[in-house]
Amino acid sequence: MSKVRAHAFTVSLDGYGAGPNQSVSDPLGVGGQQLHAWAVKTRTFQRVLFNSDSGETGVDDDFTARSFENIGAYILGRNMFGPIRGPWPDDTWKGWWGDDPPYHCDVFVLTHHARNSVTMAGGTTFHFVTDGIESALERAKVAANERDVRIGGGVATIRDYLKARLIDEMHVAVAPILLGSGENLWAGLDVDALGYACTHYTSTPLAAHYILTRS
Amino acid sequence: MSKVRAHAFTVSLDGYGAGPNQSVSDPLGVGGQQLHAWAVKTRTFQRVLFNSDSGETGVDDDFTARSFENIGAYILGRNMFGPIRGPWPDDTWKGWWGDDPPYHCDVFVLTHHARNSVTMAGGTTFHFVTDGIESALERAKVAANERDVRIGGGVATIRDYLKARLIDEMHVAVAPILLGSGENLWAGLDVDALGYACTHYTSTPLAAHYILTRS
Repeated sequence: MSKVRAHAFTVSLDGYGAGPNQSVSDPLGVGGQQLHAWAVKTRTFQRVLFNSDSGETGVDDDFTARSFENIGAYILGRNMFGPIRGPWPDDTWKGWWGDDPPYHCDVFVLTHHARNSVTMAGGTTFHFVTDGIESALERAKVAANERDVRIGGGVATIRDYLKARLIDEMHVAVAPILLGSGENLWAGLDVDALGYACTHYTSTPLAAHYILTRS
Repeated sequence: MSKVRAHAFTVSLDGYGAGPNQSVSDPLGVGGQQLHAWAVKTRTFQRVLFNSDSGETGVDDDFTARSFENIGAYILGRNMFGPIRGPWPDDTWKGWWGDDPPYHCDVFVLTHHARNSVTMAGGTTFHFVTDGIESALERAKVAANERDVRIGGGVATIRDYLKARLIDEMHVAVAPILLGSGENLWAGLDVDALGYACTHYTSTPLAAHYILTRS
């Protein structure tokens, strides 16, 4: 059966999935880019994001590769799609990822402001969903055509889907840094009461990796 | 120079250092005892807490051993000393640890309610400090006589000393469990702004270990 998954969702030791003050130059907020050191150096990340043959294999790479396997559609929060807030001024902004984004399938962007779908190179189409997370998930499941739906983030979007118990499985990576402020994954979220347990743990020199599974 | 240290302070993946509803049967709150699986199985813990020769060596044991090295005095929050709240009904409660507690030096217990010091077997004396964390630290430093002062916990006490930037070095262990509620170490605490950074990270199959150092 099609699953709803979150992967490679990285937080600091103190739980922040993004630093404060997101901008075009700081897509993950101030300090946020340090979070992903474990993923950036992997072979999979280098291949998918930069079309490069460099990068390392091993546990970090295994988790990165798994994050792309059998995914038929993505859901992103609007802040993960871009730094623009409020109504779309025009159709210029098409994501952080250039002309050929690393999704290669339908991507549903949660927003309060309607916008026409945007078809990119490489099979990625961005759709803008204004009627909530359940609607986005229904559309994503249809688009995924039996494959899984990945909730890509950011923090607020992951939290909304966890609160609704709509995520089946989630891979959380903890980077050995402190951010101190920004967007916290755990704050006020009783993941235990929501039925989530940590069912797997392993670690590498750059991150501790956890799998959360919903009962 | 004498340092102020915190050690083997264990939180769940979601940041809780104790579960909810502390009681005589649940000194660490409901679910809290799972936090310390990594420490309980170490040779040092078995020797210090149970006077037993069993237990394992390795990285977890090294961290446990370090937590007792060169400590001349302890500071504990009242909830770590016992489950009683409000005024002391009498002098019956003398901690969770039996007649010979594992401290073997002066232990300063933060409380709003005065009480006479209690001398235990093995060199431990519990003193009750009613005039705040700075006063407790001054007294502990004198008692430690050039050795270090360890802030033993619990969560609220660690947070108070972090907020006051009075902890020089802190070892945080993360257990691969979710508690969902209870006492959160990180909530609303901007450790980055307070000058703390994560300066060391290593991990074992039972815990991820981090050292925080104040700049």
